[in-house]
Amino acid sequence: MNGPGRLQGIFTPNMIPLDERGHIHESEYRRYIDWLIEHGVHGLYPNGSTSEFTRFTAEERRRNIEIVVNQVAGRVPVLAGAAEANLRETLAACEYYAGLGVRAVAIVSPFYYRLSPDNVYAYFREIGKNTPVDVTLYNIPMFASPIDVPTLRRLSEECPRIVGIKDSSGDVAAMMRMMDAVRPNRPDFSFLTGWDCVLLPMLLIGCDGGTNATSGFVPELTRKLYDLTREGRLGEARALQTEITELFDAAVFSADFPEGVRGAVELRGFRMGSGRQPLSEEHRDKLWQLERRFHAILNRTGLLGQGSLPKANVDIDTRQVRQIVESVLAALSRQGVGTGQAQSL
Amino acid sequence: MNGPGRLQGIFTPNMIPLDERGHIHESEYRRYIDWLIEHGVHGLYPNGSTSEFTRFTAEERRRNIEIVVNQVAGRVPVLAGAAEANLRETLAACEYYAGLGVRAVAIVSPFYYRLSPDNVYAYFREIGKNTPVDVTLYNIPMFASPIDVPTLRRLSEECPRIVGIKDSSGDVAAMMRMMDAVRPNRPDFSFLTGWDCVLLPMLLIGCDGGTNATSGFVPELTRKLYDLTREGRLGEARALQTEITELFDAAVFSADFPEGVRGAVELRGFRMGSGRQPLSEEHRDKLWQLERRFHAILNRTGLLGQGSLPKANVDIDTRQVRQIVESVLAALSRQGVGTGQAQSL
Amino acid sequence: MNGPGRLQGIFTPNMIPLDERGHIHESEYRRYIDWLIEHGVHGLYPNGSTSEFTRFTAEERRRNIEIVVNQVAGRVPVLAGAAEANLRETLAACEYYAGLGVRAVAIVSPFYYRLSPDNVYAYFREIGKNTPVDVTLYNIPMFASPIDVPTLRRLSEECPRIVGIKDSSGDVAAMMRMMDAVRPNRPDFSFLTGWDCVLLPMLLIGCDGGTNATSGFVPELTRKLYDLTREGRLGEARALQTEITELFDAAVFSADFPEGVRGAVELRGFRMGSGRQPLSEEHRDKLWQLERRFHAILNRTGLLGQGSLPKANVDIDTRQVRQIVESVLAALSRQGVGTGQAQSL
Amino acid sequence: MNGPGRLQGIFTPNMIPLDERGHIHESEYRRYIDWLIEHGVHGLYPNGSTSEFTRFTAEERRRNIEIVVNQVAGRVPVLAGAAEANLRETLAACEYYAGLGVRAVAIVSPFYYRLSPDNVYAYFREIGKNTPVDVTLYNIPMFASPIDVPTLRRLSEECPRIVGIKDSSGDVAAMMRMMDAVRPNRPDFSFLTGWDCVLLPMLLIGCDGGTNATSGFVPELTRKLYDLTREGRLGEARALQTEITELFDAAVFSADFPEGVRGAVELRGFRMGSGRQPLSEEHRDKLWQLERRFHAILNRTGLLGQGSLPKANVDIDTRQVRQIVESVLAALSRQGVGTGQAQSL
Repeated sequence: MNGPGRLQGIFTPNMIPLDERGHIHESEYRRYIDWLIEHGVHGLYPNGSTSEFTRFTAEERRRNIEIVVNQVAGRVPVLAGAAEANLRETLAACEYYAGLGVRAVAIVSPFYYRLSPDNVYAYFREIGKNTPVDVTLYNIPMFASPIDVPTLRRLSEECPRIVGIKDSSGDVAAMMRMMDAVRPNRPDFSFLTGWDCVLLPMLLIGCDGGTNATSGFVPELTRKLYDLTREGRLGEARALQTEITELFDAAVFSADFPEGVRGAVELRGFRMGSGRQPLSEEHRDKLWQLERRFHAILNRTGLLGQGSLPKANVDIDTRQVRQIVESVLAALSRQGVGTGQAQSL
Repeated sequence: MNGPGRLQGIFTPNMIPLDERGHIHESEYRRYIDWLIEHGVHGLYPNGSTSEFTRFTAEERRRNIEIVVNQVAGRVPVLAGAAEANLRETLAACEYYAGLGVRAVAIVSPFYYRLSPDNVYAYFREIGKNTPVDVTLYNIPMFASPIDVPTLRRLSEECPRIVGIKDSSGDVAAMMRMMDAVRPNRPDFSFLTGWDCVLLPMLLIGCDGGTNATSGFVPELTRKLYDLTREGRLGEARALQTEITELFDAAVFSADFPEGVRGAVELRGFRMGSGRQPLSEEHRDKLWQLERRFHAILNRTGLLGQGSLPKANVDIDTRQVRQIVESVLAALSRQGVGTGQAQSL
Repeated sequence: MNGPGRLQGIFTPNMIPLDERGHIHESEYRRYIDWLIEHGVHGLYPNGSTSEFTRFTAEERRRNIEIVVNQVAGRVPVLAGAAEANLRETLAACEYYAGLGVRAVAIVSPFYYRLSPDNVYAYFREIGKNTPVDVTLYNIPMFASPIDVPTLRRLSEECPRIVGIKDSSGDVAAMMRMMDAVRPNRPDFSFLTGWDCVLLPMLLIGCDGGTNATSGFVPELTRKLYDLTREGRLGEARALQTEITELFDAAVFSADFPEGVRGAVELRGFRMGSGRQPLSEEHRDKLWQLERRFHAILNRTGLLGQGSLPKANVDIDTRQVRQIVESVLAALSRQGVGTGQAQSL
Repeated sequence: MNGPGRLQGIFTPNMIPLDERGHIHESEYRRYIDWLIEHGVHGLYPNGSTSEFTRFTAEERRRNIEIVVNQVAGRVPVLAGAAEANLRETLAACEYYAGLGVRAVAIVSPFYYRLSPDNVYAYFREIGKNTPVDVTLYNIPMFASPIDVPTLRRLSEECPRIVGIKDSSGDVAAMMRMMDAVRPNRPDFSFLTGWDCVLLPMLLIGCDGGTNATSGFVPELTRKLYDLTREGRLGEARALQTEITELFDAAVFSADFPEGVRGAVELRGFRMGSGRQPLSEEHRDKLWQLERRFHAILNRTGLLGQGSLPKANVDIDTRQVRQIVESVLAALSRQGVGTGQAQSL
């Protein structure tokens, strides 16, 4: 399924439902994948930060991609996170995922140790030279060694198989500098943002799309923001960005990332199970209140047990948008978490 | 000159020319002010960070505003920096500047000490209650105590005389959160960005303008970027943003701020004198090379001694834009400073 | 009073009592100065960060030194903060303070703007060449441009009138690197720490003393820690360091610096007045509770109205140490502020 | 080999020699382990940050401990890094290492994601309840979620099997706060520092020892610093600390950590092979120059091919100390890397 076109649209960095023993809950996972595709996302991005890739074993990460590719069955492109313990293991993962037919892999910059730019370059250069599949770089400076503009330029010039970057810094100026440095030589290079609260301006200054956590629990809305912006309906898009930001802030800042996202996905009707990071009483209290409140909201809106909106398509109107946002936000924000934290950043 | 309309457009945080004894060089300053207005800026912002307000005495800061208001003579609004050592002194400055007829004052959040949000609120609340003139808040977290979203909301709700915020964080998401928090109750509230490299996206998400250092040395271009964006000519605006960013990065990152800006203003034909911060040999070498190179550039382009472009208006065409940018960048960037630093951020 | 010996001992960065109109409360100030000297501090350091030098006018800063020098009357050396808006004003202050007879001045690294090391060097080099009085550098990276090791080495080699550094970073490794870089050439150079919670280890690795906020409200204890360490009584010193750290954490982290110090000085019987930074309701509540609680404590311990301990000397025994600490801590820490914050750093 | 005594002394976070295919070079590794023990280290700490634990597979991390325990053969205690992808895997590693007979395991705080203190607590609480072997916590805030003082206190009170903390922050004040919070209830709790440039003050304020990178290439010296301090010979210890700091700064700041350490170990006669992180040309140049220079130094000092000092014991005299330091520093620092960087921190 390797293909020519620039990577575009909304890719969901999907979480993985776990069963009671903490293993991948495959049937629920497959149901979730179908739901995401049916609700309009352009692609999937398993083994990303939202997917908690570091908390799974190397074997589980491979199994994860197998399930996703199998269930997607060619309906949308799959961008597979392929970072492993070292270069050799990472290239082996690239090879394996190429064999499965993913559209591309995404490889996070080396983490734990903070590398200088020249060694970030050296790492990705080796990958770029040896990968059998298209590669997108993954820049997330709050967790991993930063990929700076000169490094990106060099890599884009020397490695045709490096085809894009997903950036979760949320830095709009940096994204423009990256584009200015790369696009003249590589018009095929793709720029994706992983920071949902700036999706609108990022698309306006030239991004091709995003890998957005909100698309994991309100795929209709993230997709709609993408469509409105592409169509130049800026007023509507700006208003929807405000809603997306409220949801993003609540999900991302309400608890240690990505626990809030897990809770939000559950709100849409999926049994995600307990995460692998033990949670304190305080955190568990939050999640329990979330569950209880959501039950009330679902009852009130008639969505209980449906796990999705009545009209699961992307042509929802403004009233529905507000309805979805309020349902989800009600569950998240009334607990006194999330929104306040984000606003005081 | 206090008036109703929302503060809009490009305000220049103008530097102050100094004579050989380090005093304000009044005649050169008046010539510079005229030149800025003639080249299209919508207003002036003396006593800002680019103006090195902390390096002048309290008496000089007052004299600065006197000169600016007198020379401007009502042609454009003046936004006067009024931060002094403490609340009493700051309010006295507000009073004095109100008497001079400034459109508004701008007051930076308390600096040196890093205050908690509730005390930032307490400080501005006292100002908002007692000021005789409109106040814009000045948020520059890299130098002063940050003004967060809840603080801004409270102040905007309680203090009608606080009429805007100029934000130099460059954080597009934060700017949107601020707007979302304030605009519903205060449609008259103004949002200005002081970070030129995101001027385009800031305007697109709803900013009213900017207080931009680049407008101090390429006022035609900063103004043009504003106009193009307002007219919805996004393709041209995006291309011009790239140029502005190159200039901004060179001027801001080529030397300790704001020395690079001083050099860039000199490139346009003004004798700025030596700054008040002693410079190392390394820094002086840079400035000397800048001067020498610019002399060569001016000779080549025929601008030598003119101090301005042949057609000093805002209807310059694309070829001219590139010409201005290249002239200035040539002087700045060939010295191996500036651009590299900015790109590696 | 300029003299040969290395600056040594505990210098108090004393706060300034204010009267009801917010002016310097001279009589109370003189009483406070006497009390500090009687309780064992080796010197005074007016116009420091704890003294809120930035919140006073240039005229007030001069008046401050006049009062201190006059009241001290040669009993202990005075280290006068002399940083002003720019080099010219700073040198004028040095000249003025030299005329008053201070032992040395202390000059903080340029703040607001963050300068690169070579310009920090250039600034202090000009001062070192032109000062008529001994200069100590003041390094406080959380508020001002950092002074790094190579900069300090150069300055110490080139400027004999620069005779010491007071460092408020609390970084023990950096202090040792500074000593290793400077001492071989300048055995007369003095190293003082402004971070009370590491006073013991700083003295052990070779510091000459400190400029310590705690000595402004428990001068007996800070002095005693100095003496015990000098005498090699490490067990007792280590135990006393624990107490000093509790007091330091409470005073420094209980409110925006230096409000907690003001409250703590009041606990010892001085009317400090309201600070010049407007405080929020929350902050004022804290201070009110502090006052009320301290009244109770003083009543209980019989210290009410005395403003000092019964035996105001430095030969206090262990039981008394604990008594003083508990009295002060009780007032500070029971409010749920301070200690928790510090411990979670 | 689980035993009662408090963990004390110098533990080497040993690197792993790799062969030409990048696999563990077992024979060289065994020779290196013997050399470390013979040169005086009190214990070994495999699978630490200096050991690049994140760049090995889970299988290799187990094999690493097998080799170390087997080669050590009870001569010194082994502290085995046991952090794996998640709680279940980490506990399985604890179990396995317990079976091998390690003295204790060391578990780094969760990394990549930055957890809040309550979830750091929750994580270690689960480990503390379920581990079959003594656990030391590993705090390294520059790479992993910080362990703060209240978290440490709770864990020390609730989990008897948590027996110590190794702290690589270098923050002397924080270390004292930790001791003050824990020691009263847990006199058996051990405090180890992983920041060699403050080893002396850390020991003086009560630390039990360190896990020090320098002990991997100058074990005689790190051990000697420990002994001198324990014996109260502070003058000599302070002088030796200066040497250790020079070596530490050169090894740690000369290249992306821990490449400089690898080079330094090679200087002592071990073939470490290439690391698993691809290095840029610039970095490889540095290492090549290092190799070449060291060859010259060894020739000159007569150490070529010996891989150790003539008198490999801990009773070396001052002249020898300086000789070792200079040999190693010559190779490291003449390349213009390292020392400057560290000093400008």
